[in-house]
Amino acid sequence: MSRFFTEKYSSLIPYTPGEQPQDMQYVKLNTNESPYLPSQGVSEAVEKESRRLQLYSDPECVLLRKKMAEVFGVDFNQILMTNGSDEILNFAFMAFADEKRPLAFADITYGFYPVFAQLNHIPYTEIPLKDDFTIDINDYIGINKNIVIANPNAPTGICLEISDIEKIVESNPDNVVIIDEAYIDFGGESAIPLINKYDNLIVTGTFSKSRSMAGARLGFGIANEKLIADMNTVKYSTNPYNVNRMTSAAGIAALEDNDYYMDNCKKIQQTREWTVEQLKSLGFEVLESKANFVFAKNERISGEKLYTELKKNGVLIRHFTKEKICEYNRITIGTPEQMKILIDTIKKVMN
Amino acid sequence: MSRFFTEKYSSLIPYTPGEQPQDMQYVKLNTNESPYLPSQGVSEAVEKESRRLQLYSDPECVLLRKKMAEVFGVDFNQILMTNGSDEILNFAFMAFADEKRPLAFADITYGFYPVFAQLNHIPYTEIPLKDDFTIDINDYIGINKNIVIANPNAPTGICLEISDIEKIVESNPDNVVIIDEAYIDFGGESAIPLINKYDNLIVTGTFSKSRSMAGARLGFGIANEKLIADMNTVKYSTNPYNVNRMTSAAGIAALEDNDYYMDNCKKIQQTREWTVEQLKSLGFEVLESKANFVFAKNERISGEKLYTELKKNGVLIRHFTKEKICEYNRITIGTPEQMKILIDTIKKVMN
Repeated sequence: MSRFFTEKYSSLIPYTPGEQPQDMQYVKLNTNESPYLPSQGVSEAVEKESRRLQLYSDPECVLLRKKMAEVFGVDFNQILMTNGSDEILNFAFMAFADEKRPLAFADITYGFYPVFAQLNHIPYTEIPLKDDFTIDINDYIGINKNIVIANPNAPTGICLEISDIEKIVESNPDNVVIIDEAYIDFGGESAIPLINKYDNLIVTGTFSKSRSMAGARLGFGIANEKLIADMNTVKYSTNPYNVNRMTSAAGIAALEDNDYYMDNCKKIQQTREWTVEQLKSLGFEVLESKANFVFAKNERISGEKLYTELKKNGVLIRHFTKEKICEYNRITIGTPEQMKILIDTIKKVMN
Repeated sequence: MSRFFTEKYSSLIPYTPGEQPQDMQYVKLNTNESPYLPSQGVSEAVEKESRRLQLYSDPECVLLRKKMAEVFGVDFNQILMTNGSDEILNFAFMAFADEKRPLAFADITYGFYPVFAQLNHIPYTEIPLKDDFTIDINDYIGINKNIVIANPNAPTGICLEISDIEKIVESNPDNVVIIDEAYIDFGGESAIPLINKYDNLIVTGTFSKSRSMAGARLGFGIANEKLIADMNTVKYSTNPYNVNRMTSAAGIAALEDNDYYMDNCKKIQQTREWTVEQLKSLGFEVLESKANFVFAKNERISGEKLYTELKKNGVLIRHFTKEKICEYNRITIGTPEQMKILIDTIKKVMN
């Protein structure tokens, strides 16, 4: 830390992203990327934009939002596009939470929520998951706090029913409820249709997972247009040109090829079922996942050891050191071929 | 404003970007974009990345920073890459300024500085430029405040000598001095070599202007590695994957084609000299610019009227409503052909 660093962030502990080895030598199952390439339309759209990069991108993302409105069945003014969904989460935390309006989220969930809360000096409560890693929705009913829920949750993969989400949103009418749907396309039901019924609901999403665009950084928030306007106030005070031309064009093209991506999601779900079966047959306990990853442990090998041994053998999965989950690992669902390598390698290291 | 919006930003007045009409029907001289296309290498690099967007970008931007280190003659650890230079400015304001360490900047300068200061609740002083729109460096010597100076300044285009910059940095050893060099490649001298002598200097830059990449969003900060580490703490608590794969690859390719871009800068300087001559011959007062724009007024027509009339005739320039500068307009230097259209159109509307 330099002698110039502000006191207000001096105790800040930044988020630690999963390893991103640039050498590409691993079967990479650690950051929930899609194993499927972007569609041809994406490449073509990007290549076209690459020849007019001298011009600023559209800060309002008009064309992209029009396409989003069409695909997601919402109004143009109910959408805000961001540089990854981390950015929309930060904008939402900035716009709606403060000392008077604290936040609540699960103790086991996306690790960035407490970081954003600390960054913005927002008091927060971490609500323990039940022993089976499910959310007890009673813990969120009428609590008079802003709430953020990853649905499906990460790293567990467990998904709430939409009726439960609605109960939470409905019972906290004076607080904002953020449903982070980064993994919704792998089997969950989206809360987006509820935004017309509840003015306190924000649904966030990303093109990183189901739409094979982690490297393009495209996220979004969908909500009542007043909430969107407030988050735009934050955006235009932070980084108006937050989405670049290439990413914007890639997003439009991906939405035009939506069937391709939704088919990939089905494939990933099938591969997930196969992987779960295999893991269970090897003695793993696997939480029920509606995401493109599974969360699993095996009493015969510690979480850390499994992670380390797999890494040595060229397979990268995600290990967390937090006590409650350190015996588990989060394993991204790749192609059937990659998952076969995973299973074979697990067999090898456990023998 | 929704009933949920936090009080802490309720009086925030966001930045207003220049108009970005998406229909491309104007001779667009209003947002200081380069009139020259990105190099062929950029398109090729981007197209290649577009086929592996399913993988996250490298949060550390290792390859890009290595290339930056080579071109800018600094150490790898003295560089932080960001989503446009607005992001590095915000990171620097967040990391180093607070109620105890207020900011100072010119009253006429980049309009985002007061917005970032308000966003981060940083007290700030706007130091008036002299009547001729130059900075009096004595106003910045030993003032014991964090300082940000756009050099060349915008929207005036006026550039400080490097020896003056050094005096300011040297005389405020307990404060951070940010030199925003968005326009340095059009005739100014960079302060980057001073970072090894002063641990309190941050130089920020962008690929938006001289490197024809406004639409790709790539900015950077160069400073002592401790300052960079502090700004990384903010980055990793805000948006670790802030630079996407395509932009990163475009940046590397642009640096490999550096001669092409530096030649373009020379062309723009020549076109600027021609434009200044023409404007003066039409009775304009033009400030001495070392940027890719000129700031000019004419007693025979109000700033607003000139802007409006040119827009009606298909030429877009930037007008500001602030009293001290409302008689001026900022005119981006485009190609010789574009500037000929500008001059012809001015002649037309002034007759």
